Order: sequence, then C-alpha cells, then structure tokens
Amino acid sequence: MSSHKRCFSSSKVFNTPLEALHDVKNGSKLLVGGFGLCGIPEGLIGALVTLGVTDLTAVSNNAGVDNFGLGQLLQTGQIKRMISSYVGENKKFEELYLSGKLEVELTPQGTLAERLRAGGAGIPAFYTPTAAGTMIESGSFPIKFGADGALTGAGVVMPKPRESRVFNGRKYIMEEAITGDFSLVKAWKADTRGNLIFRKTARNFNPDCARAGKITIAEVEEIVPAGSLDPDSIHLPGIFVHRIVKSASFEKRIEKRTIQGGDKAPAVNPMRERIIKRAAKEFRDGMYVNLGIGLPTMASNYLPPGINIEMQSENGLLGFGPYPTEDQVDADLINAGKETVTMIPGSSTFSSSDSFAMIRGGHVDLTILGALQVASNGDLANWIIPGKMVKGMGGAMDLVSSGTRVVVTMEHTAKGGAHKLLNECTLPLTGQGVVDCVITEMGVFNFEKNTKEMILTEISPDVSLEDIRAATGASFRVAENLISME
Amino acid sequence: MSSHKRCFSSSKVFNTPLEALHDVKNGSKLLVGGFGLCGIPEGLIGALVTLGVTDLTAVSNNAGVDNFGLGQLLQTGQIKRMISSYVGENKKFEELYLSGKLEVELTPQGTLAERLRAGGAGIPAFYTPTAAGTMIESGSFPIKFGADGALTGAGVVMPKPRESRVFNGRKYIMEEAITGDFSLVKAWKADTRGNLIFRKTARNFNPDCARAGKITIAEVEEIVPAGSLDPDSIHLPGIFVHRIVKSASFEKRIEKRTIQGGDKAPAVNPMRERIIKRAAKEFRDGMYVNLGIGLPTMASNYLPPGINIEMQSENGLLGFGPYPTEDQVDADLINAGKETVTMIPGSSTFSSSDSFAMIRGGHVDLTILGALQVASNGDLANWIIPGKMVKGMGGAMDLVSSGTRVVVTMEHTAKGGAHKLLNECTLPLTGQGVVDCVITEMGVFNFEKNTKEMILTEISPDVSLEDIRAATGASFRVAENLISME
Repeated sequence: MSSHKRCFSSSKVFNTPLEALHDVKNGSKLLVGGFGLCGIPEGLIGALVTLGVTDLTAVSNNAGVDNFGLGQLLQTGQIKRMISSYVGENKKFEELYLSGKLEVELTPQGTLAERLRAGGAGIPAFYTPTAAGTMIESGSFPIKFGADGALTGAGVVMPKPRESRVFNGRKYIMEEAITGDFSLVKAWKADTRGNLIFRKTARNFNPDCARAGKITIAEVEEIVPAGSLDPDSIHLPGIFVHRIVKSASFEKRIEKRTIQGGDKAPAVNPMRERIIKRAAKEFRDGMYVNLGIGLPTMASNYLPPGINIEMQSENGLLGFGPYPTEDQVDADLINAGKETVTMIPGSSTFSSSDSFAMIRGGHVDLTILGALQVASNGDLANWIIPGKMVKGMGGAMDLVSSGTRVVVTMEHTAKGGAHKLLNECTLPLTGQGVVDCVITEMGVFNFEKNTKEMILTEISPDVSLEDIRAATGASFRVAENLISME
Repeated sequence: MSSHKRCFSSSKVFNTPLEALHDVKNGSKLLVGGFGLCGIPEGLIGALVTLGVTDLTAVSNNAGVDNFGLGQLLQTGQIKRMISSYVGENKKFEELYLSGKLEVELTPQGTLAERLRAGGAGIPAFYTPTAAGTMIESGSFPIKFGADGALTGAGVVMPKPRESRVFNGRKYIMEEAITGDFSLVKAWKADTRGNLIFRKTARNFNPDCARAGKITIAEVEEIVPAGSLDPDSIHLPGIFVHRIVKSASFEKRIEKRTIQGGDKAPAVNPMRERIIKRAAKEFRDGMYVNLGIGLPTMASNYLPPGINIEMQSENGLLGFGPYPTEDQVDADLINAGKETVTMIPGSSTFSSSDSFAMIRGGHVDLTILGALQVASNGDLANWIIPGKMVKGMGGAMDLVSSGTRVVVTMEHTAKGGAHKLLNECTLPLTGQGVVDCVITEMGVFNFEKNTKEMILTEISPDVSLEDIRAATGASFRVAENLISME
C-alpha cells in the first residue's frame, strides 16, 4: 500500500456516490463491507451499476440477494470474481457460478476477515487452524467451473493449495493478506476528518474492508463536524478513510424478519426435543457459547435453572436476547443467521475480525452445531454436498477449529436411514478431528482425541445397543459406565 | 488456550487485588498492560509484591521506573525475564540486565503488540517487515549476559534467529504469538459482565494483553451494572475478562509533565533551525505523520501556511495538539515520548496493536526521525550503541519498515566530527534500506532504492561541495539540478 498516490486534501467529503467512485475502473478490486444485507453501502453499489464498470473483483462476505446489494452487480454481469464465505441466498449467483460464468473463491468467514485485517496491517501472511485438512488446504474446490459446469478441462480455474505447518503439535495453514483498490463501506456517522462510528451489527466487515483498501470510500447516514465524536468511541480513525459521502436514505432491507411469538419456530417432535434437552445440559453458568441455526439454538430455550450463558454471534455480537417485538425490529441488529434479534444488558458489538479473533483464540467456551456426517476420529462434514446448491462454509470452519469444545447435535441417521456416523466421512470436511461430542436421539458419543476413539457414553431409554449399532456406520466403544440419556 | 480451566461463575467481581491474584504462582507468565506509567495496573503490581511470587516472566512494553510500576518487581528480584520494547527509564533494570541477573527479550513495539494480538486471536505466527535485516532477525542480541556482562560463555542466553521469507519481492520475518498465564490490565470502567472501557491513551497495550491471557484480571476505576455501557462503545468485550477488581485510588504518576510555555523546549541554534525548517517542507496538506522526539517534533512548529497535518503517536493517539496548560494535564493522555499532550477536534484513540497495524500497513504517510548513522544504501542505525545504556528500540523498527516515506533529520556529523553518513553502518541496524531522505544542516540527500544510490539534491548556502564531501563518509552522486537548501 506504500506506493499508491492518495489525494492529500483537507476535505474528504464528496457530494454523491458517483463522484466518490469516479476513478473506479474496469478490473478494479473492491472490498465491500456488510454481512448479508446488514451494513452494506447501498448507494455506492447502486452507483457502480450506473458507472457500468466491468470485470470487477468483489471481496465481500456475501453476495447480496438477487435484486439487492451486490446481487445487482451479478445481474448486470459487472463482477468477474467474488471472494466470499457464504452466498447461499442468491440464485443468480449459483447459476452463474455453476455454469462457469463467474469466478468464486470460497473462503472461511474468519479467514476472510483476518486476511483483510492483515492486508490493512502490513502482515503479508499468517497461520490459522481454520480449514486445515479440508478442500481449502488442498485447493480442490474450483474457483471457476468449465462451460456447463465441467470440473476439468478448458476454462476451469483451481485455487492454489495452502502450505501447512505444525506449531506446538497442531497443524495450521498459511493464508495471505487481501488488499483492494477501493474499499466501499457503510458507517453510521462520520466526522469531516473521516472518523467513523458504526451502529450495532452493521459494523461487521466494514472496518476490516476499510483498513485494507488503497482508497476507502465511506457511505454514511450523517456527517458531523470534527470534534463532535468522542475520541475514545471512534471505531475507525479517519486515517483509513479517504472519501465520505452522505446518502439521502437507506432502504436497509431485512433478510429474515423474525418476531417474538412469530410463526417461524418449527414444531419440535419428541425425537428432536430429546436432542435439544440433552444439549442444554452442556451449558455451565457463565459460559460463552456459539449456537448454530436450528437444534443448537433451540437448546437455549431449555437452560437449567440458575444457569446463565452469553451467546456469541459471529457477525459481531456478544450477548443477544429473544427475537424483537414489531416495535423493536432494527435492520442494524441481526444474528449470524441474518435474523433480527435484540440485545441484553451487557451486550457488546465488534467487527468481524475481532469476532473471529474471539472464536479462533478459544475464548468462546462451547460451539454447538449440526452435521451431515461425523467420523469416529472426530472429522466433521457439514458445509457442502457436491453437486447440490453452493452456499459456502460461512463461519463453520473457523468455529470448529478453535480448539474449544465442539458438540454436534443431529438426528442419528439421514432420511432413508443412511448412516451419518461413519468410520470416514465421504463428504468434504469442515474440520479434521474437531468433534468432542455428538448428541443424537439415540445416544451421546464422546470423542477421545488422543486415542481417536468414539465412545458411547449415554443411551436413550427408547433404544437398545443393537439399535444403535445398526444405525451407526462407525465402530465405537461402549463406555463401562454407560448411563441412560435423560 | 483451549484446555485451561476457567471458573464459570456469573460473578467476576473480586474485592481486592490480592484476592484476584490468589493463584499466581512462582514462574507464572504475566502480560501486563500500560505504556510507560500510563494505564498500568498499579494495585495489581503492588499486590504481586505482597504476594511475593518469584521467577516471573513479565511481558510489558516498558519496565516502569525504579520505584514505580514493574520497576518495583525488579527491585524485589521477583522477575526472571522481561519481554519489552523499551526500558530506557529504569536504572535498576539496566544494572540487573548487564550483570547477567535478568533475562530480557527486546522486541520491537509493534511486533510485541501484534504477537500479543495473535496470541489472543489463535494465530500461532505471522510475517512482518519489522526488524528484517537486524539483530532481531539474526538472534544476535543476548537475552541474558554472562556473569559480569560477558557476551559468551556460561549463563549466556541467546534468542532464536527468525525465519525470513519473501512476499511480493520484499523480505519479511516470522514472529510467533505470545500468550500468558495471567493478564494484568488497567481499564477505566467495567460492567459486572467484565466489559471494559479504557480512557484516552491509557488504553495502549491493555486490550492486547487482555486478549492473550488464560486468566485476565482487570483493575478498574469504576464498576457499573451490566447494561450501563453503550454496547457499541465497549472497547473490550467481557468474554476476555475473568476477574474485575476496583481500586480505591490510582496514583497515575506522570513521567514527563510537559506544560505549554514550560521550560522544556531546548534552544534552537541556527544549524538545527535550518534542519527543522527544511523538514517542515516535507509536509503536505492532510498528511498523517509520525514525528520522532527532538528535531522532527520541532518541525511541526514550522508548518507552511495552509498546510494541516495530523500527528500519529504510536502509543495509540491520532491527532494531538500542543502541550497542556497546568489545568489540562491528564495522566491518561500522553504521546509516545511519554509527554503530556492535548487532543484536537478529530482526535481518536486506539490500542497498541491497532496503532501499529496503522503504521505497518502504510497508512501513516510520513515518518521523520533522527539517526546515529545512515548508509548510502538506505540502511538506518538509531537504536543502540553496544556497550552503552540499553534502552530498546521502542517503535522505531516498525516505523521505518512500513514502506512509507522515511525522512531522517540529523546533524551532519557526530561530536568530534565523526561521520554519520557512511558506506556501511557500523552500529546495529534499525532497518535495512529504509531511508528515503536525509536532511542535515549541510544539505539534503535522496536515496534511490532501485539503484541503491545516495544523491545530494540540495546544498546549504553556507557550505561548499568540498565541505560536504569531507564531512561525509559515504560515496554519493550530486544531482544534475542541485539546488540551494532554503
């Protein structure tokens, strides 16, 4: 970033998004803030459509939806390559990618945030446990398919395999920094010197993108005179922000408007209730936990008396409460499932790189998530079924690689009775040897990392050991003190 | 950090520092926040003296002064090893170190902050340009001297050399994460869930240390109920903080009480004034600059009309103003020279790792600093004279390695006329090939990085080319359009 020419001028304020974007060119690499549709620079994205620049590379956690956010630039064909962690809400995206018309570098969410953070911090590369032993390490998930979705032959682009290295007996992979020609970010308030403040979970990737751009353009809701903001409460110092533009209005579209007492809660059958209730016993008072969508999140409704936990949401929120009432709905306050939520006393917000530093650093005590397959050595597969829809891994690879307790909740077998507990996963891995415990409706398995043993420690009163053996595709040991699952 | 046992309890509040430190043991590794005497956990350090634990390793940017801060634990001999960047204010420290009674790992300030940040973020190692080509890379600066200061033989401990690697044509070295058994930090306010807010430049290393400790203990001025702090303004989420203790009072000793119109400003002779005035011409409107102590800082008094700059101070402050009046003096607001300063409209504060991310990432447009020696290939030596007092490199190695413009201001020769501009530095390097420009009272030299040429571009009206040649120990080319230095 050292050799680029910035325009030194005491005024950073531009009148319109189009003026602020005047020097974006065909082929520019853009770092775009936002998580889902929360905290995206709506006006700047719209202006890119008007500007008509093409062959863009867009680094952004998500790709918008079909007709909003970056989805607009996919519709117009202005984007050549996306670098993202999760693109599951966008049909156009999938169609373009699978037919070889769009390049996509799927990158774990925490790795993406950290690569941007490194880019802004002059760190060319770093080591991470995330994605060790997966297709990210081996470089075997295509960036670009051939015509008609071919996996080999003309036009196919593969990513480069990652180097791996052992530190303190554990395997890590090397990831390189990401920088960009322009960063397009959304903030709540700016002062005239470019100091930025973000609002609630609309912070997310915005500070990380802002730091890694040669030219950083911030679209804001309000511009105040320098000196109006508390110096200790500025989230991003103005040194990182070269242009500011105030938008007249923001749509702030909500992806999943979840309301208290709404009709979104799926009915819980007895089988699922058994899993959820058992999962709730994993909670200890004062724990910080990250709960996946579905069964794991439902476990928080069965907290034992006297037990308080704080939930972490990887988009940048610690401590969140129930769904909002209609009056409380705030487009700037969502969880990692993109659902509207509320805060509780003691909640805090932070950037994506800070969120995954928290996760990767082992500070979240417990992760509970679902799985497609678990192997007896603790391997976990839960991010993709090749040939089916491409969604991306989101933060799952980061969460399971943190070294803290990973509990899987899942139905014992797949539809049709296919085994999900196997001696070896057949689906692409999310993490290698990462699972500590699996809770199903039939029982509980613990995974002994040293001996690589899978041990049945609890059994449902409704089933026999033979039932479990028949439903399990993995060899396992039965604990001497096998107890009844309650 | 995954396997340690935390006490899960909804109460994090302890009554006294001694109770909060109850399980610190002989040999514990402590990460201690603070910069100089600003933002240090006074009460916790005092309690460690009472506790009497020994053989401690202390990771802290500084070592206090003789009778305050960590200096107290050096007096009592409780510290076995220090990991620090600058220890220049502590005579006891020097005496212990040079006589082989104390182990010291001198680490560049930005590298120290980033190693702590990495430790908290689950990043085992990263690459940095800082200290490439110096004694840090070669591992040739002793951690422990032999008895009576011997450099070889029994008792001498040397650091391990750093691996180096080229990314994008530039050399970087690999640095590993630092974690600790206990982090001892100082914050302004905590809520009962451990969320912390720091005040002004008393933030510094505190968040970085806090994130990297297995058990983090925060000493604060005030504890408020959860929910009292703005979730968007929390500097450090409570997930990183395991114990909180409120101290009855803080001394907040000031190391360098600098006052507006005080008698601290050294008289400027005509020779130095020429250097300062020429250095001031390096400023462009809107620049972000980091100015070393002495001549560089004085240059800011000669800003050309219409030119505004923002000064960065590596302890975590962007945009600072003149020295305070007596009434304005605030122990929580100092610059990197540990002098009391003031803020200006648009100032912002941040942590040490964020500050050096800013520096290392090339966001500070210009660094002006002094030198002991500069070589014709751009090598810079300004951090140590072996055999003389051990101060440490502070942030100098980070500042000069950022890739942005580095201007050296210095008197042309040393006392007695010894050459400072040389074909090769004889003193240990601060950075390799990092200097862009040298300004002396005799002229201005530019350094051509590609051809490794040193070129005289401006000459003082008071001297001849022959005078300069006689006073310069390096071969240099004279620019075709040599102009008069004004």
